[in-house]
Amino acid sequence: MSETYDNDRSYVLHSWSVQGKLSPKVITKGEGVFFWDENGKRYYDMGAQLVNLNIGHQHPKVVQAIKDQADKLAYVAPQFAEEMRGKLAKRIIGLLPEEFGKCFFTLAGADANENALKIARAYTGKSKIVARYRSYHGATYGAIALTGDPRRPPVEPAMPGVVRAFDPYCYRCTFGQKQESCNMECAEHIREIIQFENPDTVAAVFMESITGSNGIFPPPKGYMERVREICDEFNVLLICDEVMTGFGRTGKWFGFQNFDIVPDIITMAKGVNSGYVPLGVVAVNEKIAKFFDDTMLYCGLTYSGHPVSCAAALACIDAYEEEGHIDNAAALAAPFAAKLDALKEKYELVGDVRSIGLFGVVEMVKDRETREPLTPWNGAPGPMAEISKRFDEKGISAFVRWNYIFLTPPVIISEAELNEAMAIIDDCIGGAQKAILGK
Amino acid sequence: MSETYDNDRSYVLHSWSVQGKLSPKVITKGEGVFFWDENGKRYYDMGAQLVNLNIGHQHPKVVQAIKDQADKLAYVAPQFAEEMRGKLAKRIIGLLPEEFGKCFFTLAGADANENALKIARAYTGKSKIVARYRSYHGATYGAIALTGDPRRPPVEPAMPGVVRAFDPYCYRCTFGQKQESCNMECAEHIREIIQFENPDTVAAVFMESITGSNGIFPPPKGYMERVREICDEFNVLLICDEVMTGFGRTGKWFGFQNFDIVPDIITMAKGVNSGYVPLGVVAVNEKIAKFFDDTMLYCGLTYSGHPVSCAAALACIDAYEEEGHIDNAAALAAPFAAKLDALKEKYELVGDVRSIGLFGVVEMVKDRETREPLTPWNGAPGPMAEISKRFDEKGISAFVRWNYIFLTPPVIISEAELNEAMAIIDDCIGGAQKAILGK
Ligand SMILES: Cc1ncc(COP(=O)(O)O)c(C=O)c1O
Ligand SMILES: Cc1ncc(COP(=O)(O)O)c(C=O)c1O
Repeated sequence: MSETYDNDRSYVLHSWSVQGKLSPKVITKGEGVFFWDENGKRYYDMGAQLVNLNIGHQHPKVVQAIKDQADKLAYVAPQFAEEMRGKLAKRIIGLLPEEFGKCFFTLAGADANENALKIARAYTGKSKIVARYRSYHGATYGAIALTGDPRRPPVEPAMPGVVRAFDPYCYRCTFGQKQESCNMECAEHIREIIQFENPDTVAAVFMESITGSNGIFPPPKGYMERVREICDEFNVLLICDEVMTGFGRTGKWFGFQNFDIVPDIITMAKGVNSGYVPLGVVAVNEKIAKFFDDTMLYCGLTYSGHPVSCAAALACIDAYEEEGHIDNAAALAAPFAAKLDALKEKYELVGDVRSIGLFGVVEMVKDRETREPLTPWNGAPGPMAEISKRFDEKGISAFVRWNYIFLTPPVIISEAELNEAMAIIDDCIGGAQKAILGK
Repeated sequence: MSETYDNDRSYVLHSWSVQGKLSPKVITKGEGVFFWDENGKRYYDMGAQLVNLNIGHQHPKVVQAIKDQADKLAYVAPQFAEEMRGKLAKRIIGLLPEEFGKCFFTLAGADANENALKIARAYTGKSKIVARYRSYHGATYGAIALTGDPRRPPVEPAMPGVVRAFDPYCYRCTFGQKQESCNMECAEHIREIIQFENPDTVAAVFMESITGSNGIFPPPKGYMERVREICDEFNVLLICDEVMTGFGRTGKWFGFQNFDIVPDIITMAKGVNSGYVPLGVVAVNEKIAKFFDDTMLYCGLTYSGHPVSCAAALACIDAYEEEGHIDNAAALAAPFAAKLDALKEKYELVGDVRSIGLFGVVEMVKDRETREPLTPWNGAPGPMAEISKRFDEKGISAFVRWNYIFLTPPVIISEAELNEAMAIIDDCIGGAQKAILGK
């Protein structure tokens, strides 16, 4: 084995893993929608790494911006003003509805959400937050408290004050509804929750604009608009986590732009500079920004507004715009959805497919009638391993979790590349189904 | 005013500030121990920005490492193995006592501490943590719960489970002792706390090896050794936060190496790569590392082990070693302490001076007898503004907080530069004293 592999196994603790069971691939090269392991094997990066590499691997403009800023001035503390920091804040506010005012910069998704929490509590003077079960907002103690995902309980007690709501998961409606009978109970029950928690204690409703790593659920029409109405009724902020849905993922700059709403606070990370250098952002509306003109902002971190991170983000946003990548994601939305539909048509183990832009999921079931998941939520991979194994063999990198296959390629992917990758994926699912059903 | 200034004031929220009161300096250039504002004015960086820029501004080897890695491969997700990530983990473990096993990589000090917390809770199966009042461990909801600094209450409720202890602040002993009468009550009362909290519920004692931004308190001889003994007696982990004290700050690689102890978990950030690219580290001993061989590690973040951050750290650590900067900090410890002592001798408003390595503080008082702080803790700057104003005029950048002046230059500073900067500082304190006392 290689020195890199040995160093990794001897000295590195990996995220979300039983360390003794790992044998990680050694990655040595990336370009566009592809990366290569140390044996020269090429993979289609259909996960965009962790759904962050929207601009693809080694985009020359982003690389150049990092190098230029490192040469010029690698670090300036947050108490000072610095060119890239100011330019990026202006650029991001320019991408948002006119209500938006200022940015607070962080390093990642988790700490963007932590700081959004602090800002919401300070601004409203209230402390409770409504968040959903099927959600992931990061792993630090505030962000993991927001998170509903079962990765939360093993590290609790986390921050108190989070109240849990259910999800717009139409394929498995918690409220027992079908499309015909739906009265959007998934939005409506949030009103009941706020009433019973007492609106005077609820600071915010905190939501991924479209749920990501818990299953990708484009909500029913009118859902987000109704949530916004409920927030307004009770004077509660609406905070949208755009960490995964931002920067072209859904075919728009931001996921919330698929709906007729304006959030009060928006958090970002991942696609903002595609993760070439760590960066997170909390954007707040003008009213909230003004509040801190004469009130102390109790938020801070050593690397807030890091010049190299900001320079990479400016270049990345310019590239999205100048090279038309957001439009590309929008244009590929329909062909991508059609490929997903075809999988559902073709394979009985495919229970549901959902997508918006280049944000897609294939949900595997044992039985289309009962909809029993092919592997239980939060259980061992079981038969899903048949799929992961084939992806690996055929050079597809994609996030497979529980009974979900996430397909979230870089937004720069071409239609030809998408078609080729989807054909291989079709093949892998077919092979896996044969192995699982024995026919 | 410049475009950068305007962008900053219009669009950027600054850490720990009332935004309307700010008029931040625009920084455009840095080199070694100096930086320049947009008007070409030069400043001695006697704070090393936020006590992170140990290697100084624009070190050519660190800059080159960033550029090389950006060219090669800017990002690889944490589930994979990557060259720089593996090499850095090995390098860091090599700097630590032989008990140490593996590293978990984060982005900053706060999230290093968050993950240390999670690891300690998982490993011990216990949830309470003993931490001190005079401490800063970061601003996310777990790290701010650890933090005792008054910046904590305005954002509470934070993570529950932290139990508070007092500090080894000999100049103002909480226990009413003098040097002659001291029985190290500041260490001993931690034993009583653990007994009353019930040792079966206490996971760890969490401490900066030497308290930083709350006042720099090199502890009395034997303090850390006694804390280690108490931890061992009750089977409680000792976690040392080396975010500020690591990488030469105290004249050693790590602050804990000034004592005869080995912690169980060590957290790092800042000096690890001097903040050229965001990076944090949690290093755990072999026993804890092994525990996660067959237990799930419930920790994770998108940018864990970021290749560009790791490459910068490898280059920075190499530069510390090859260019003798840690030895430099050790060699300058005595001359630096002598300069501080001279200030105390000379100015009646200087109540106490403390330092270890290049980690120093001047504590200002109204009256040497009563030791009343020149400005109250957590109050308005008051007369301390006389000092900040003069620093600014004379081109000294240093962190002034409450009645403390922190002096923490880059560890690459030469003796001549240190002498020159200390002469200017002497002058500023003298001028401020004259203005304050009117004589
Ligand atoms: C919606 C969402 N929010 C927050 C996060 C946390 O981001 P990070 O891993 O950068 O802390 C993620 C990460 O996957 C995410 O998908
Ligand atoms: C001792 C200590 N721990 C943790 C932190 C938090 O680090 P960061 O600001 O990178 O989150 C700091 C920051 O000043 C610190 O001094």
